[in-house]
Amino acid sequence: MRLSEGVEWGAHVCGLLSVLPDGATLSGAHLADYHGVPPAYMAKHLQALSRAGVVSAGRGPTGGYRLARPASEITLWDVTQAIEGSAPAFRCQDIRTRGPVGATPKECKRMCGIAKAFLAAENAWRASLQAVTVADVMGDAAKDFSAAKIKRFATWLEDAAH
Amino acid sequence: MRLSEGVEWGAHVCGLLSVLPDGATLSGAHLADYHGVPPAYMAKHLQALSRAGVVSAGRGPTGGYRLARPASEITLWDVTQAIEGSAPAFRCQDIRTRGPVGATPKECKRMCGIAKAFLAAENAWRASLQAVTVADVMGDAAKDFSAAKIKRFATWLEDAAH
Repeated sequence: MRLSEGVEWGAHVCGLLSVLPDGATLSGAHLADYHGVPPAYMAKHLQALSRAGVVSAGRGPTGGYRLARPASEITLWDVTQAIEGSAPAFRCQDIRTRGPVGATPKECKRMCGIAKAFLAAENAWRASLQAVTVADVMGDAAKDFSAAKIKRFATWLEDAAH
Repeated sequence: MRLSEGVEWGAHVCGLLSVLPDGATLSGAHLADYHGVPPAYMAKHLQALSRAGVVSAGRGPTGGYRLARPASEITLWDVTQAIEGSAPAFRCQDIRTRGPVGATPKECKRMCGIAKAFLAAENAWRASLQAVTVADVMGDAAKDFSAAKIKRFATWLEDAAH
């Protein structure tokens, strides 16, 4: 089982957008440059984040991206769901109904205990991601930023942000 | 993100093996028949469960399978790990080190907050699966077994178990 790499890119993009000055935006090309990935790859994930209402895209060729709401209101689950969709990782095939001793519909009124346990585990996973916002992650990350990194970032941003 | 279908098969196989009479075993062919899947497909998952020490296989052509320990000591995480392995679903690519403002090794002494949050969510998922045993699931499922199903099962088992 592997989470799409796009989820990690999406989380980093949201982290970067969360530290933009008020009203500023970044283009898809600059977001790709910042993260060192091809623009087409970044564009795919930006579209997903935009469709899910996590980021909003300005109009026209110079229209850049910004967060659609405050970083304190965007959780890592929002980002995950935007990129991965919300289909459960465990997809019950109702195995108990198969084979020579398969349960009848009447014997299957309750959800299979195996499916129930796996879906409960996914709920725990989801709740954990819902408890962490982009603002939380960036607040924590900022503790590790050296003065040199902040200076490099400010220089890059001056050229990139619109 | 999708959990391998084999995890669900593995859990059902363990559930079936947990209700065998003491000392009885079931062959791979019978386990495949019971679940209505091709023997080769079942064999692949049985090998994984066997390698992980969840089931044990008798020797020789008539050697069947049984649980390697009591069903109350086999969790759904044991089954998941046997089939899926234990690599995390989130695999940090250290995105923070990339691009023109990439963090230096010195700025990366602590784990990236994004990776930390995703791994914490997986820990919650794992803990949830570790809290449910095959015995728990079967105890719950047994409440839905009709007398007719138990009779069908006993007839099938009489022919199949060794």
